[in-house]
Amino acid sequence: MASTLDFYFEFSSPYGYMAATQIEELAAETGLILNWHPILLGPMFKVMNSAPLTQIPLKGDYAVRDFKRSAMLAGIPYNQPATFPIATVAAARASLYALEHHRDAAGRLIKALYAAYFADGRPIDQADTVLDIAAEQGLDRAEFEAGIGSEPVKAGLKKEVEDAMARGVFGSPFMLVGDEPFWGFDRFDHIRKWVARR
Amino acid sequence: MASTLDFYFEFSSPYGYMAATQIEELAAETGLILNWHPILLGPMFKVMNSAPLTQIPLKGDYAVRDFKRSAMLAGIPYNQPATFPIATVAAARASLYALEHHRDAAGRLIKALYAAYFADGRPIDQADTVLDIAAEQGLDRAEFEAGIGSEPVKAGLKKEVEDAMARGVFGSPFMLVGDEPFWGFDRFDHIRKWVARR
Repeated sequence: MASTLDFYFEFSSPYGYMAATQIEELAAETGLILNWHPILLGPMFKVMNSAPLTQIPLKGDYAVRDFKRSAMLAGIPYNQPATFPIATVAAARASLYALEHHRDAAGRLIKALYAAYFADGRPIDQADTVLDIAAEQGLDRAEFEAGIGSEPVKAGLKKEVEDAMARGVFGSPFMLVGDEPFWGFDRFDHIRKWVARR
Repeated sequence: MASTLDFYFEFSSPYGYMAATQIEELAAETGLILNWHPILLGPMFKVMNSAPLTQIPLKGDYAVRDFKRSAMLAGIPYNQPATFPIATVAAARASLYALEHHRDAAGRLIKALYAAYFADGRPIDQADTVLDIAAEQGLDRAEFEAGIGSEPVKAGLKKEVEDAMARGVFGSPFMLVGDEPFWGFDRFDHIRKWVARR
């Protein structure tokens, strides 16, 4: 039986964006079944008494440099957003709605939302922008507007974050291969080696 | 003119240990001139209001797992030390003394100190253990005992840490290729690609 590749990501995460552009290829290559899990890092950072990388003294400047260089070396378009980090509740809820009601379009929508922010500088913290992007992907704007405001989707995202923390997820991107945890875009190669060894 | 590869490392750092086992190979492969820089992370963590990885909630358990797995996948012997992290002033001073007075033996001594702690579980926080390891490498125990207690070496290590922070170093391993900063054993591949692009 094929193992699962649970992919946890936050829309404000540069390495999450980079990982999202290659996660389907990684799943195909390793024969793992991919599950997308939009999450929010805010509640996790509270538990860790942590902060976004760019706000940490010394680490902050390096972090932005490493975002740009990592993207460049991987051939991924990247422009450090002027406003960073941002609130990502609307984008995460739209992704969750798509995963539940338009599964075939969900990966495409998630990648479009990420690229809108990290390549094109669009304000995906705004629900309007998120809905525009859904419409650009051929999805129904009004349906998504109702979807991201609905109680089941709100509760569903809260549950995703709680479930993720219960499984030990504390960052983005975070991948669980079965129960084996991998944190970071720079662990894709470890996942390949790990799967190949079994 | 060949660029320099300044390699900053702290003896309590698992990824610093792993990097030390391969840094000479990386330098040879890329044509960079290697300079070893023993440092202490304590003063840097104070500035960042940070703590050793293993002491951070959620991250701690993952960190130990990733130490072991990273070493295993890279073919490096590794046993998580029972006492971790440890004070590494004696090991850093011995390394600095070797770099200044026995340059040909310095890389060998540094790797032996790291392996003693991370593969064999020896207490390199003890000056006696550090001196034993120097002797095992064919160095003069009494000379090193005087060396690590000498004012120039004490002041020299303090200066290494200050110089490192002035250059933006905040972790271990930390590599500067010329002035381009790379943080982490998992950035060796970025260094290869970075050098190849120039």
